[in-house]
Amino acid sequence: MGKYSIGLDFGSLSGRALLVEVETGREVATAIMEYPHGVMDEKLPDGTKLGVDWALQHPQDYLDVLQEIVPSVMMEAAINPKDVIGIGVDFTACTILPIDDDGEPLCFMKEYRTQPHAYVKLWKHHAAQDEANRLNEIAKNRGEKFLKRYGGKISSEWLVPKIWQIINEAPEIYERADRFIEAGDWLVLQMTGEEKRSSCSAGYKGLWHKQEAYPSKEFFKALDTRLENLVEEKLSTDIYPIGSKAGELTESAAKLLGLNPGTPVAVSIIDAHAAVPAAGITEEGKMLMVMGTSTCHMVLDKEEKLVPGVGGIVEDGMIPGYFAYEAGQACVGDHFKWFVDNCVPLAYHEEAKERAMNLHSLLTEKANKLAPGESGLIALDWWNGNRSILADGDLTGLLIGCTLRTKPEEIYRALIEATAFGTRMIIDTFEENHISIQELYAAGGIAEKNQMLMQIYADVTNREIKISASSQTSALGSAMLGALAAGESAGGYDSIQEAARNMTSLKDLTYKPIPQNTLIYDLLYKDYKKLHDHFGLGMNNVMKRLKDYRRKTS
Amino acid sequence: MGKYSIGLDFGSLSGRALLVEVETGREVATAIMEYPHGVMDEKLPDGTKLGVDWALQHPQDYLDVLQEIVPSVMMEAAINPKDVIGIGVDFTACTILPIDDDGEPLCFMKEYRTQPHAYVKLWKHHAAQDEANRLNEIAKNRGEKFLKRYGGKISSEWLVPKIWQIINEAPEIYERADRFIEAGDWLVLQMTGEEKRSSCSAGYKGLWHKQEAYPSKEFFKALDTRLENLVEEKLSTDIYPIGSKAGELTESAAKLLGLNPGTPVAVSIIDAHAAVPAAGITEEGKMLMVMGTSTCHMVLDKEEKLVPGVGGIVEDGMIPGYFAYEAGQACVGDHFKWFVDNCVPLAYHEEAKERAMNLHSLLTEKANKLAPGESGLIALDWWNGNRSILADGDLTGLLIGCTLRTKPEEIYRALIEATAFGTRMIIDTFEENHISIQELYAAGGIAEKNQMLMQIYADVTNREIKISASSQTSALGSAMLGALAAGESAGGYDSIQEAARNMTSLKDLTYKPIPQNTLIYDLLYKDYKKLHDHFGLGMNNVMKRLKDYRRKTS
Repeated sequence: MGKYSIGLDFGSLSGRALLVEVETGREVATAIMEYPHGVMDEKLPDGTKLGVDWALQHPQDYLDVLQEIVPSVMMEAAINPKDVIGIGVDFTACTILPIDDDGEPLCFMKEYRTQPHAYVKLWKHHAAQDEANRLNEIAKNRGEKFLKRYGGKISSEWLVPKIWQIINEAPEIYERADRFIEAGDWLVLQMTGEEKRSSCSAGYKGLWHKQEAYPSKEFFKALDTRLENLVEEKLSTDIYPIGSKAGELTESAAKLLGLNPGTPVAVSIIDAHAAVPAAGITEEGKMLMVMGTSTCHMVLDKEEKLVPGVGGIVEDGMIPGYFAYEAGQACVGDHFKWFVDNCVPLAYHEEAKERAMNLHSLLTEKANKLAPGESGLIALDWWNGNRSILADGDLTGLLIGCTLRTKPEEIYRALIEATAFGTRMIIDTFEENHISIQELYAAGGIAEKNQMLMQIYADVTNREIKISASSQTSALGSAMLGALAAGESAGGYDSIQEAARNMTSLKDLTYKPIPQNTLIYDLLYKDYKKLHDHFGLGMNNVMKRLKDYRRKTS
Repeated sequence: MGKYSIGLDFGSLSGRALLVEVETGREVATAIMEYPHGVMDEKLPDGTKLGVDWALQHPQDYLDVLQEIVPSVMMEAAINPKDVIGIGVDFTACTILPIDDDGEPLCFMKEYRTQPHAYVKLWKHHAAQDEANRLNEIAKNRGEKFLKRYGGKISSEWLVPKIWQIINEAPEIYERADRFIEAGDWLVLQMTGEEKRSSCSAGYKGLWHKQEAYPSKEFFKALDTRLENLVEEKLSTDIYPIGSKAGELTESAAKLLGLNPGTPVAVSIIDAHAAVPAAGITEEGKMLMVMGTSTCHMVLDKEEKLVPGVGGIVEDGMIPGYFAYEAGQACVGDHFKWFVDNCVPLAYHEEAKERAMNLHSLLTEKANKLAPGESGLIALDWWNGNRSILADGDLTGLLIGCTLRTKPEEIYRALIEATAFGTRMIIDTFEENHISIQELYAAGGIAEKNQMLMQIYADVTNREIKISASSQTSALGSAMLGALAAGESAGGYDSIQEAARNMTSLKDLTYKPIPQNTLIYDLLYKDYKKLHDHFGLGMNNVMKRLKDYRRKTS
């Protein structure tokens, strides 16, 4: 009989379980369930209204989903629970909640049910922007070293701004909370009774560093005297590298899930990051692009090097024994969706309808007939700001080269090319800072669906691109970490490299650069870079001024 | 009994007659007829194919239209032919044809009926671009002074490139032609038997100057030895100021038109330019914008001053006794049409259909709800190059400030604002060069239809804008010139100022700048100018490079 591992992938809207054969990586069964409360961005379940830019979740949803999807894959796979040798969990981050000493979320308590700050703040809760701005200013003025590990800027999405917002707006919640915890760590706690926190979420979202730990008391005091003892009083320093075992399923958890008590559970990992082992990447020189609404670029290195505009550098953050670097583009699929929603003429809708295609397919078909350079257009892909390498959310999109003959598919292609140039800018920046990128890997919906786009990326970056065979990479990566938590003696693996060799594969179709295309894209990229630097590095701050006028007038 | 004048307005697709009461300017009757052959841009009537960028007309069409529309307004007005005291003619230009000594178009002759070069070359015949490029290079190298009167660049639409194309491609037509003549002058010749050419078309399109006459023999020889004697052999130097009488209706012409022989006919004028007197502008300080697919800006001054990027400066070119300056924007209505054709999503089509509105009205309604600056966008209105003040057809459009929340009406408004900024750039350039612009006047379809647009122009230029009361300004202007040709003794006028006082009026609705809007637009204009100079003056020639890549790949 085979051995199996379950990967649990908790995304923004739903949770997924993937049951995988450990020896081969064969994906045996999968189940998905949406969170009953979804994303709460207007009101709490009782009707309490939320502010602008809020995004909450209900922790009960995670438990409800867990109890549905695990039994579901077990039933589908029809295997003996004893053959499930491990469980891994990936989760969105920074997605945090206040809990008491028993691990109970404050929002479960009757007295806090109407208090928004008692709930889970989802990663995309953006209401702590003021706190983030102040934090960045203070950290910059104090010359805090940690800033450089995060490209010089801490996001409002991260742990400290979110907690600071709580102390500012609901000090009673801050007081009452025994700890603030990432939802991924909390789910592991629910399953194992052990609070062993993830180096991945602590490192990327909590400002924690393996050698330097959290920022200093003096720094937190400089933010707000009430935050001086945040780390000691409200966080945990019990942090474990990715690939560790967090604990074993408790009796009660095992019963609820239909698994055996004592089943090993891995330390949690951030969802996008779980795709790295699932793509077979367990060493340096290989960059993974997880391409969806936005793109996350991840690469490993043996050393810690400060790369400008990098989103985070964390030791053991993705693969044990490596520094894991993350960079990103804030707007990729979202960019094309904006175009399709706002800029496609009636005739194209009619043609798509007649030919029973969706608009993306129709535009791609038309754009694919264009040669590189033929559109006469270049765009800066900053419709949602620039994450890497400029780390500037106030930058905006630019399109140049329009004529009266410019067609929708030409703009569509220019937007795709712009995101490819943005990726090349990230790759070049890594290489300039001595992080070698020899191979490109891609995963995610766009990488699977759009061959034209992938060819453009190969041509623009002048690198062959390999595609992960799994279409559930995060869940597969979690299952691999589950097999690692089990260890070889239990039928799993003792090293992630070995797990990757056996459990992952690539699609046969790869994208190789076409020499004549790379020549033209090299020229276009020069112009992209010139515009990038001109508008991104302060030579002309027109984008910021326009945002400012917009804020003042709307 | 009243006295009447007939204004004949020959446009690109049709001819119009407007019968006007001279004493009051009352528009009594109007008639329009389309040219039977329209614009021939693919083949001749016999099927002979035309090249790319060709645009021809058939001169018989002008005669056929004339014989239809003049009797038609006479019948509608039911007046005595003796009460028609004058006729004025405006025409597109440069629209030229080869004729023999008797004024007969070569294309009427059996032997040339299949020869495209024997026909009328319409203003928008663009197949002489090579000749125009060479002309500009040679003129620049020789330091020809005349270039400065035309903003440094001669268009392929003008007389010399068009004739040069004929000598290159059909030397037998050049040889056989006794003269090349503007269609407006030719129509006057047909009516009066007099070949008295217009200072307006000779000045703006034929490189003629009242003091300096045509360019030198040496210049023409430098172009092509065969052109050395072009002026003496193939053109006429018998050129008359606007406002002059060219002659009187011949017996035969009078009979065909149902008018009295001896009726005075004015020297012809270019169609857009005839709008200047019709808007009541007969002195300096007032700029007229004729706003349609493109915009023509016209202003008068007592002196000749070289203004960068001006399209032409001609003494007596619009109003006798004044230097008339012309500038222009290559893409105004065309710009908005491109947007509506290419960039409007399905939902807007559905809303427009449901509410029985056209898309322009719907977009205008939505855009009108935005405050200046609220879109967060700026565009450079160069979708069709930049005519004034950069005179560079290789510049292209730019849009900056896009976000995932950018809506179609925001882009639509930004494009409108961009054309307003372009107009302000023209006004500022005139003023910097000591041509005062105290008042703005507007005529043409857009000025009549789009109140939001006109308010934006008033706010951006910080000037009140007055709108011509007539919606047939060119035809009215021609009728005024007819009344001037008749003179006061015949019931007309001896001065254009007097004619304007009596025959023209403005709409009651004017557009006054709104102070809070002008403040924001002043800021946005600074950014427009910064982008304009950066991309237009060579700091970053990315637009030209992109056009170049496009040419090489498509």
